[in-house]
Amino acid sequence: MRTVAWADGVVRMIDQKRIPWALEVVDLPDHHAVAAAITDMTVRGAPAIGASASFGMALAAHTSTALTLAALREELRAAGVELKAARPTAVNLMWAVDQMLALAEQDDYAAPADLKDALLTAAQRIADEDVAINRRMGAHGQSLIQPGFTVLHHCNTGALATVDYGTALGVIRAAHEAGKQFHVLLDETRPRLQGARLSAWELEQLGVAYHILPDTAAGYYMQKGEVNLVLVGADRIAANGDFANKIGTYQIAVLAKENGIPFYCVAPTSTIDPNIAGGADIPIEERDPAEVTTPYGMELVPAHFKARNPAFDVTPNRYLSGIITEYGIARAPFTESLKRALNGKDL
Amino acid sequence: MRTVAWADGVVRMIDQKRIPWALEVVDLPDHHAVAAAITDMTVRGAPAIGASASFGMALAAHTSTALTLAALREELRAAGVELKAARPTAVNLMWAVDQMLALAEQDDYAAPADLKDALLTAAQRIADEDVAINRRMGAHGQSLIQPGFTVLHHCNTGALATVDYGTALGVIRAAHEAGKQFHVLLDETRPRLQGARLSAWELEQLGVAYHILPDTAAGYYMQKGEVNLVLVGADRIAANGDFANKIGTYQIAVLAKENGIPFYCVAPTSTIDPNIAGGADIPIEERDPAEVTTPYGMELVPAHFKARNPAFDVTPNRYLSGIITEYGIARAPFTESLKRALNGKDL
Repeated sequence: MRTVAWADGVVRMIDQKRIPWALEVVDLPDHHAVAAAITDMTVRGAPAIGASASFGMALAAHTSTALTLAALREELRAAGVELKAARPTAVNLMWAVDQMLALAEQDDYAAPADLKDALLTAAQRIADEDVAINRRMGAHGQSLIQPGFTVLHHCNTGALATVDYGTALGVIRAAHEAGKQFHVLLDETRPRLQGARLSAWELEQLGVAYHILPDTAAGYYMQKGEVNLVLVGADRIAANGDFANKIGTYQIAVLAKENGIPFYCVAPTSTIDPNIAGGADIPIEERDPAEVTTPYGMELVPAHFKARNPAFDVTPNRYLSGIITEYGIARAPFTESLKRALNGKDL
Repeated sequence: MRTVAWADGVVRMIDQKRIPWALEVVDLPDHHAVAAAITDMTVRGAPAIGASASFGMALAAHTSTALTLAALREELRAAGVELKAARPTAVNLMWAVDQMLALAEQDDYAAPADLKDALLTAAQRIADEDVAINRRMGAHGQSLIQPGFTVLHHCNTGALATVDYGTALGVIRAAHEAGKQFHVLLDETRPRLQGARLSAWELEQLGVAYHILPDTAAGYYMQKGEVNLVLVGADRIAANGDFANKIGTYQIAVLAKENGIPFYCVAPTSTIDPNIAGGADIPIEERDPAEVTTPYGMELVPAHFKARNPAFDVTPNRYLSGIITEYGIARAPFTESLKRALNGKDL
């Protein structure tokens, strides 16, 4: 089953807050519920958020009672504002909403029903393409994994972070499907433990050998020479290759460079934001400190203890060995290679 | 009250597994119980473990029914072996046991009772000296903290990690007692959360401004230029200044160097192991993976998920700005400055 999908007039998604304890789906009846599910991380992962937002726009159209195209477009613009505000860092959200709004502004609809059909078709296509793109990234990236390797991975970038298959974890999956034997170290990724809860759950099902690490131990294994390759995802890539990803990515990038370990980011071109020149311009979300002190209702410390909770950090492009896209592996200088990928040219 | 103390024929210690939820003490009736309390981390922190071991040796003597000095010495040697095996990395444990065994081997006892008295007096002196040494380290180190600073700290190195006052957190306490206004960022320090549970609890009581950080976020704040100084403790320092400390320390040292931030270790000379030339020779304890998956009985992930749990890492001396000891701040070349401190000469 897919992480997010259209189902008989609702948006259906896996409730990722319940993984690994239960595989439950929630049906969202309107785009307000979709926006709320993005904000509270029922769905997370940049590509999955993007697909959710495109279905959210289709749902806004589907539930509309507007009698004219002009009125429907007005409602869609408002829905787009609401969905874009659900989370600030991942650009796939903005990209997906903008794709749907551009479609809505075209002139070739006879009636609101035609625009509604067009939006749903487009959302379905975005979801289908996400899976196809992930498989292409997996094919490009899996050659980096040699038999016997240990691969370090941060956060969750698997089927759950996308519509299906995954980005960085998709590369790992592709190498596994190619029959290679290797081992994965999963940063647990505090505070929300996406590595320990989601990635470990996925690798258990795929049968890939793994161990969860406390985030404090990644450098230890790199220093010991036990890590051959680092793979991470991205939430927004600036035009120069600087990229925002889950908090803790920057640290791992620095440690990989210090220890001479190749460090790759795996992301579709929809994660590239050509309007942002460098990483300093990427907005970083700071979330509720309760995610640190009392995650998932477990009281690690008293709730009144003070904590900070930045959700992302920015890794400067100088730490990157390459960015694995659906068009191949972008290398420095990234301003040129990413522009080529954005234009749909193979790398 | 002290973290560990002698009380009417038992060793009394704060149960650190219960902090911050309750301040409870446990009374240990024999040295087997002391060794078990060190292993299960009822008491932790290199200096506190050292003091606990010295009291454990005094308790082994106190509870002995040996009728001859020779028989008592034999029992003490066995107790020393058991206590030293309780945890492998912190050298203060070995140092304290060796101090007590050397005392036991002296010739100037008329009867077992005299040796028992001598050992208890020595253990009390070790505990008292620990507090005095911590205050001296605090006085030497606090000049590094300027008003308005943000200080990053890892694990717990406060009163709970020592007999009283603390090492790195003792420097922070001394700067606070000197009337300086500053802010502390506390790495939560997974898997056992000593930063979030113990250090935050101590700073709450001292009234020092702090925030807990997920271990993933330390680099983020360093990269933003918001950290002025990093202070950590140590569990064993090799002759060349390489040092073992709580897992995650190495990462922070690399990130501090990358961002041009002074990085100091704070430890008494009893933490220096002159018999070990460099960090590669320090044994690293790997603990139960359940501390990662189900810490303190909280199920972060299903217990069958696979995890690794190295308890310490080694930071090479090249990342160190200095080592704050009771004799002053040791600087590179550490082989010379640490030798001077070990000989009791001011730095």
